[in-house]
Amino acid sequence: MPADPPRGNAVIGQAGGPTAVINQSLVGIVEGLHSGGAVGRILGARHGVRGMVNDDFIDLTDLSEEKLSRVAVTPSAALGSTRDKPNEEYCERIFEKLRARDVRYFFYVGGNDSSDTCRIVNQLSNEAGYELRCFHVPKTIDNDLMENDHTPGFPSAARFVGKAFTGDNLDNASLKGIKVNIVMGRHAGFLAAASALARHREDDGPHLIYLPERNFDTDRFVADVDRVYSRLGRCVIAVSEGIHNAQGESISALMSGLEEKDAHGNVQLSGTGALGDWLANLIRLKLTPEGGKPPRVRADTFGYLQRCYPDASPIDQHEARAAGQKAAEVALLGDLDGSVAIKRMSNEPYESRFELVKLEAVAAKTRVMPDEFIKGDHDVTPAFFDYLRPLVGELPVIERL
Amino acid sequence: MPADPPRGNAVIGQAGGPTAVINQSLVGIVEGLHSGGAVGRILGARHGVRGMVNDDFIDLTDLSEEKLSRVAVTPSAALGSTRDKPNEEYCERIFEKLRARDVRYFFYVGGNDSSDTCRIVNQLSNEAGYELRCFHVPKTIDNDLMENDHTPGFPSAARFVGKAFTGDNLDNASLKGIKVNIVMGRHAGFLAAASALARHREDDGPHLIYLPERNFDTDRFVADVDRVYSRLGRCVIAVSEGIHNAQGESISALMSGLEEKDAHGNVQLSGTGALGDWLANLIRLKLTPEGGKPPRVRADTFGYLQRCYPDASPIDQHEARAAGQKAAEVALLGDLDGSVAIKRMSNEPYESRFELVKLEAVAAKTRVMPDEFIKGDHDVTPAFFDYLRPLVGELPVIERL
Repeated sequence: MPADPPRGNAVIGQAGGPTAVINQSLVGIVEGLHSGGAVGRILGARHGVRGMVNDDFIDLTDLSEEKLSRVAVTPSAALGSTRDKPNEEYCERIFEKLRARDVRYFFYVGGNDSSDTCRIVNQLSNEAGYELRCFHVPKTIDNDLMENDHTPGFPSAARFVGKAFTGDNLDNASLKGIKVNIVMGRHAGFLAAASALARHREDDGPHLIYLPERNFDTDRFVADVDRVYSRLGRCVIAVSEGIHNAQGESISALMSGLEEKDAHGNVQLSGTGALGDWLANLIRLKLTPEGGKPPRVRADTFGYLQRCYPDASPIDQHEARAAGQKAAEVALLGDLDGSVAIKRMSNEPYESRFELVKLEAVAAKTRVMPDEFIKGDHDVTPAFFDYLRPLVGELPVIERL
Repeated sequence: MPADPPRGNAVIGQAGGPTAVINQSLVGIVEGLHSGGAVGRILGARHGVRGMVNDDFIDLTDLSEEKLSRVAVTPSAALGSTRDKPNEEYCERIFEKLRARDVRYFFYVGGNDSSDTCRIVNQLSNEAGYELRCFHVPKTIDNDLMENDHTPGFPSAARFVGKAFTGDNLDNASLKGIKVNIVMGRHAGFLAAASALARHREDDGPHLIYLPERNFDTDRFVADVDRVYSRLGRCVIAVSEGIHNAQGESISALMSGLEEKDAHGNVQLSGTGALGDWLANLIRLKLTPEGGKPPRVRADTFGYLQRCYPDASPIDQHEARAAGQKAAEVALLGDLDGSVAIKRMSNEPYESRFELVKLEAVAAKTRVMPDEFIKGDHDVTPAFFDYLRPLVGELPVIERL
């Protein structure tokens, strides 16, 4: 029988790279908590776990519905985010701070690292015999969380990538040449794969899509580009920032020469045009005919625009909000902890629902694109398109002469 | 008294960097020509002047209204574009080809170089005593045409830049650090200046805006960034790709080391992340405290997304269409040649109208931002904001906690 919800306060945090809909989840949690009577104050931790250990909170309890609805549609993390990845000792400090403020509900909106933080804090509270209900609410544009059909934030980022490639493919068709576009995604290629949304006709780009799920070989890459360029006089290429060689070495990190690593030990991939420039130069070098003119080669790195461009997918907005509400509702109903996961119930018409899964099932694990979504070593399958299409909302009208 | 419109065919071409609304102008011309009885076939030249000299045309005469309306909202140049800048001899070949096809109406949608092509072809037809009505329809995201309050394509590109900075400023507020964003604009800073649309609160970025209308000094730049970063713990910077030092040397070209020049003698500025990466490294180098950790510095180069992202400003859509219609109408009314220019009649409510100006007034000339729009050496004025705001359409709702 579910335990009565404990009386006490709630803390909400946002973590990792922000998205266009992470505030929907924040607002969803607040709304869900309002519907129950057990919660006293609802505190927002500024910059995630960092605000928790530094006693830096915003009181969200009495925000008006109107204010909340405006925050919900604002991109990026309204509470501020953090890259801190707490270890056991850090989590102990979090737990002590939460206990000191009589916090009984802890919600963390983020990726698999945030889920891991929830897991550790939950374990500490269990060991201390202090009832703390810990919930992870999924968020990541990389779409790399286990147990989820997809994750809030991904559909909106995919929408941006699809629309950007739609315009860019037409731009390339009008002035010809070879165009390399670098797309975010450290381990999973879902976002680079979303470039396929730009295809309307057989000759539309992206003509080549390189994913981190397959080893990247520069010779094969140049041969692929040459083949498309010879046939069409142009070539649009989607490249995931996470591509690596057969030895597992990140091409981006090899090229940019940047040594900066974050708290997770990850090398900086975004915020530099090095990978795109390197690939463009490689193509220019290899495909310039003997004594001839080099082809027109350009590279763009979509960069941070993919995370927070203010044009979210309506379904993403809805699901991110609902995921937050769901977490709050189950917290009050008596489920003691877990991670909210999106399951797809049907594709046409599209329908999803939420399940609570164990924190351990999501924490610190990474999901990549399944083989059924990947065609050869530089394309996606129709199955991927069917998976993606319902998530991204209305796409632009395209007509060619 | 205006001469009767000559009976004959029409040719339409699109040139230069495409925009999100250049097809609106194409369709506007076709619609305008349909309304008169003098024109036989309406031919679209594929890839501008290149299609004219190569006899590469698409017949647009009988396209359905529905097809036209779908083409109109499709970004990029549906006919294909070109970077060819015809000289006198090239223009002679164009003229001969047009005469051979009994073309009496020549419309070229493009920037100041396209206007110059119109001017030369018009002169050749005059010298030959062949009645050819030559019209230039303005287009450029750089907004650098003389005689125009603004140019079709600019409002949509400005909308993209404004929305991109809106998301990116919030992203930067959530994870802090220093962010450099490179914006298109070879000679004129209008588009980089449009980043100011992202400001909602006093502490919103972009905090610094660097325009090609002012000399760029790296020491001053670093000091500016340091000042903002020290005050706010973060800094969002808009940099025009066209910035140059006091000697007039393009910083981008100096940094990227690319030798490629187009037919206009312009060094390639876009399609590489070199300028952004260089500025980011400069900041990292200069602002790392002695023995301390470097600040988090990232750079994005917005690149080609600015031209054709499929989310055009409604006013831009309307004006680009109307500019094409206007050109066709005056061609049939008897005005023999000219360039259509947008004039602003009132700001609140926003109202514009079109005038026909001499080709010579626009041809091969460049307009830059007036001093009244520029504040000091790294910002814009409220007057610029008043000028820009009515053009870009509805902007996203932003709410902060």
